[in-house]
Amino acid sequence: MTAPRYDVLGIGNAIVDVIARAEEDFLVAQGMHKGTMALIDQARAEKIYQAMGPAVESSGGSAANTIVGVASFGGHAAFVGKVKDDELGRAFAHDIRAARVAFDAKPAGDGPSTARCYIMVTPDGERTMNTFLGAAQDLKPSDIDEAKVASAAIVYLEGYLWDPPQAKEAFVKAAAIAHKAGRRVALTLSDAFCVDRYRAEFLALIRKGTVDIVFANEHELHSLYETADFDTAVKALRGDAKLAVITRSEKGCVVVTRKTVEPVQAMPIDRVVDVTGAGDLFAAGFLVGLARGKDHRTAARLGALAAAEVIQHIGARPAVSLKALAAENGLPV
Amino acid sequence: MTAPRYDVLGIGNAIVDVIARAEEDFLVAQGMHKGTMALIDQARAEKIYQAMGPAVESSGGSAANTIVGVASFGGHAAFVGKVKDDELGRAFAHDIRAARVAFDAKPAGDGPSTARCYIMVTPDGERTMNTFLGAAQDLKPSDIDEAKVASAAIVYLEGYLWDPPQAKEAFVKAAAIAHKAGRRVALTLSDAFCVDRYRAEFLALIRKGTVDIVFANEHELHSLYETADFDTAVKALRGDAKLAVITRSEKGCVVVTRKTVEPVQAMPIDRVVDVTGAGDLFAAGFLVGLARGKDHRTAARLGALAAAEVIQHIGARPAVSLKALAAENGLPV
Repeated sequence: MTAPRYDVLGIGNAIVDVIARAEEDFLVAQGMHKGTMALIDQARAEKIYQAMGPAVESSGGSAANTIVGVASFGGHAAFVGKVKDDELGRAFAHDIRAARVAFDAKPAGDGPSTARCYIMVTPDGERTMNTFLGAAQDLKPSDIDEAKVASAAIVYLEGYLWDPPQAKEAFVKAAAIAHKAGRRVALTLSDAFCVDRYRAEFLALIRKGTVDIVFANEHELHSLYETADFDTAVKALRGDAKLAVITRSEKGCVVVTRKTVEPVQAMPIDRVVDVTGAGDLFAAGFLVGLARGKDHRTAARLGALAAAEVIQHIGARPAVSLKALAAENGLPV
Repeated sequence: MTAPRYDVLGIGNAIVDVIARAEEDFLVAQGMHKGTMALIDQARAEKIYQAMGPAVESSGGSAANTIVGVASFGGHAAFVGKVKDDELGRAFAHDIRAARVAFDAKPAGDGPSTARCYIMVTPDGERTMNTFLGAAQDLKPSDIDEAKVASAAIVYLEGYLWDPPQAKEAFVKAAAIAHKAGRRVALTLSDAFCVDRYRAEFLALIRKGTVDIVFANEHELHSLYETADFDTAVKALRGDAKLAVITRSEKGCVVVTRKTVEPVQAMPIDRVVDVTGAGDLFAAGFLVGLARGKDHRTAARLGALAAAEVIQHIGARPAVSLKALAAENGLPV
């Protein structure tokens, strides 16, 4: 096994976020479930956009945010995802490359526009997401470059990849390449409703060992095991997964292995502005820590640090160098 | 003279801002003059974009920002400017309409893309701008709707309109309509280099009374009268303009008439994050105050309030309701 070229390679939906502030009433009037992600078609996308307030556009996508976080920590990072060759697609490609992430997926020349996620941020800092998948639906197994995937210490995949029709095949192909090369495969469960759509498949991936590391928040964990009891769900997860991290917002996280359940505290912060990207950036810190040989506790602290940074401003990607922030906090990467 | 339907109608370049953080070194390496606006062609735009860091896209344009500020104060506002029918043009139109500004200019179906301004925000909060005018160059006198202009208490024009070839004719047409209808015409000098390009024309506009109200910052004022001495410049301005406001960053502003020079303090703030939009939002507060019959001092305080809000976050448009903020500060509009 050769030394990995990348610390983490992520595969996910390449999405541009369209972010606006909204009141709770707006979510109710639009029939949105607060704090979750809904898939929408073009007609609904146009209706939502017309109804929502002034917005800013900012590159997003769950795994893409994570990978940008890895690069911000100074990790070597690559991303695979599909955009169209349009203005937002070019913005996505610019932003991820400017963050020093290797990104060379060929943009689609025709078909639907680059994916966008309409994000409503309520006064409490919670975000409610509506995703038009657009060109992201075109991600295919042929977009997976075997040499590249094999050269990453960890391949990181988002559960949202189960939504586009052929992306799950790309996911499975990437996982097989990674394992053949002696690398590890990580999965985020993404969203409680996403888990609800693909519960049996996600459980099979975990139980068969297609994934080695699982990221979930409490809602997703509860959805996975269809229980409202945290301890029951954690016990079930320990039987299924080799390594998992359950994030619990201000309560921190627990790192779960076959033998241990270790809680790690969240970083105290002044004020939550926008929780978009909290889970994505937690994963960034944890993954870069693992890839660089840190213990689980240190990796989780790096995750907590990155999550704390991203929820203190609008947008799902770090506004400062996470490498510098980690060093200031006595956690050199 | 009928009661005005709009408090303020603005005419300006319709621009989407592409905003990134940058170090001082970057400005030097790129040959940019810190704190100013440079016009760039498409080739230079592509080079700058490639070199700059991850960015966010946010609707901008100087007069457009002002008009959105007027609407945020609860003023009735309209905007005239030219976008293309492309993704960024649709975002510009969405954002300004979502801010409750009347905007019905027909987008260009072909030709260059919607204008964009590449903005580098340095760690001190200063912004350095590079504008690709694109579709904004197509603004023509025929885009000026006589009835609409005549129905605004104040028509507000940006000095930047002297850059696109035919926009100045649109400007002069609008000013003539406004005066015929008994309305007032305001001009911002926009930028010291812009003043340098069009000094004689701007002085003629002011001296002939084509504009009634002049907004400038210190640099622009000094450029207009080619002097480094503030008092000399103010004295010259008093001889030329009926009413002018000179903004002086943290030193506040001075309201200048033929007979008076009244200083008004800036609002104290915690930390400057991004000065983009400071002058634009000052003008918003002053104009809405004037249109609603406030005295100059109160109008200037509304301006100071709006400027203080916008420099405390990234982006050139208010992040909160200025109407609510003004009420909280004892300045009901």
